[in-house]
Amino acid sequence: MSRVPLRIAILGYGQIAQTQHVPSITANPDLDLVACITRRDIAPQGVPISASVAQLQASGLAVDAVSLCNTPGERMSTAFEVIAAGWHTMLEKPPAATLGAALAIEQAARDANVSLFASWHSRFAPAVAAAKRVLAGKRIDRIEIQWREDVRKWHPGQDWIWETSGFGVFDPGVNALSIATEILPCEIEVAAAQLQVPANRQMPIAAHLHFNGKGVPDAATASFDWRETAGEQWAIHVDHEGGSLALLDGGARLLIDDAPVAVGDEGEYPRLYRHFVDLMRESASDVDLRPMRLVADAFLIGNREVTDEFSI
Amino acid sequence: MSRVPLRIAILGYGQIAQTQHVPSITANPDLDLVACITRRDIAPQGVPISASVAQLQASGLAVDAVSLCNTPGERMSTAFEVIAAGWHTMLEKPPAATLGAALAIEQAARDANVSLFASWHSRFAPAVAAAKRVLAGKRIDRIEIQWREDVRKWHPGQDWIWETSGFGVFDPGVNALSIATEILPCEIEVAAAQLQVPANRQMPIAAHLHFNGKGVPDAATASFDWRETAGEQWAIHVDHEGGSLALLDGGARLLIDDAPVAVGDEGEYPRLYRHFVDLMRESASDVDLRPMRLVADAFLIGNREVTDEFSI
Repeated sequence: MSRVPLRIAILGYGQIAQTQHVPSITANPDLDLVACITRRDIAPQGVPISASVAQLQASGLAVDAVSLCNTPGERMSTAFEVIAAGWHTMLEKPPAATLGAALAIEQAARDANVSLFASWHSRFAPAVAAAKRVLAGKRIDRIEIQWREDVRKWHPGQDWIWETSGFGVFDPGVNALSIATEILPCEIEVAAAQLQVPANRQMPIAAHLHFNGKGVPDAATASFDWRETAGEQWAIHVDHEGGSLALLDGGARLLIDDAPVAVGDEGEYPRLYRHFVDLMRESASDVDLRPMRLVADAFLIGNREVTDEFSI
Repeated sequence: MSRVPLRIAILGYGQIAQTQHVPSITANPDLDLVACITRRDIAPQGVPISASVAQLQASGLAVDAVSLCNTPGERMSTAFEVIAAGWHTMLEKPPAATLGAALAIEQAARDANVSLFASWHSRFAPAVAAAKRVLAGKRIDRIEIQWREDVRKWHPGQDWIWETSGFGVFDPGVNALSIATEILPCEIEVAAAQLQVPANRQMPIAAHLHFNGKGVPDAATASFDWRETAGEQWAIHVDHEGGSLALLDGGARLLIDDAPVAVGDEGEYPRLYRHFVDLMRESASDVDLRPMRLVADAFLIGNREVTDEFSI
């Protein structure tokens, strides 16, 4: 039984839209990419460009949904416009620059009765669902998150990431937190945070978090570091009452008691868009702000240490 | 008709407990102060001391409620103990060191079916309710918050306030935000924040916030400054479609269209405890984390500027 595809526009056509969003949309038979809202003059081939949400709306083109791939700082005002147009809305991570803005978007979507998907792409990595099944209902004895990468390799020239509302090392770090909050059977909270901030930057280049909370063991930490060149890793290690689990490569690989488990290799974004289609078909929303709240709490109680200047 | 008083203990017997909580409890005929939980050996006269929640519970003394006047950093673990004992719980402001900890306390209270009051004492200042009535349903044209005081006068020797989880100038600032979120008919969110941090401190000594949000005017700001000596003020000015309003002296005085309005002069804490009694009698809770969320958002997107060293 075939269903009529949902007509979707993307807002913002930067790197992540080009490499992930557009290919995942065009490969999805339930979606038709009908417009690209951008102030620049490049767009996916054959897709009409609108300069703004207002211009797209004025064009009279039929649209069901918009996927927002713009920067977090622009998210609230553009989401308000999209929602006011009556279109379902998907947000790249993080959903907005602040918790308040994210909550305001959630309220607007609820009032307008449109589906809202505040997406966390890392949750759709191949091994995440399997890891969650392993840990369900288990006593947790140790949590160690290591998210270490070379910022010069992954964020060349992206100065905004170092500015306020750019999150710094929490831009990748929130991916780890989005996985941890998804797979762990206990609620982690930030008990203490050390933030290392380059003398010439606003945002941290490294962070060390210690977690607490109900059912959270004393040994529960996260280390995020953007200065790793030789030993990059995106790993979550969990010891539990029944053994151990290691989620590696950002959720792409799973070890159970040190033995690899087959988990498939489909990318994150195709599954992300399938989930968005499901939400729209079911008139449902998926908004979980816990990863972002953990980041805000880390900034709120974080102890800042000024470290070497860093240029990219 | 007289009712049996509720038996209440205070946890923490520092300055605010001594000057505000204990006098307000003892003056309230619906409350009996039955214990003081403190690690020190001073307590209100005639009130038995327990060294911990566990010790109070082991003593077998009948207790209905505990008011937590300890520091925010200790709030979550002690609240968990109090709630697990089945006692209604009141939290001084801010409710916890992090949003996550505050939410965890809220969840624990819900699970244990006890009343939880995350109190914001400034909301009980004499003129706040009247100001809220004036603004209800109005279009807001300007919001200006000025919270300027001499930290050396108000927080002598309180070094914890400058450390992480001490909030810095947001310790008084959150009082302003607790009033603003109570009286305004629109939801303010932090659009931008400038934080001035002394070179020898972790927490800001001054902050300037710019707000946005649905129905929030462009002219919507807050200035918090701890370096004010000559012109201390705790003021919220609001222009609305029908005129202007000024809430002065932290909510103690109200001007409507520049004319003073009579509002009574009962203190904040006696009313706070009457509200807590009402909550317990009605098996209700009052937990509004918006003031704290605004602080967390200000830290999350705040632009930090290092300023002169400051000693107290």
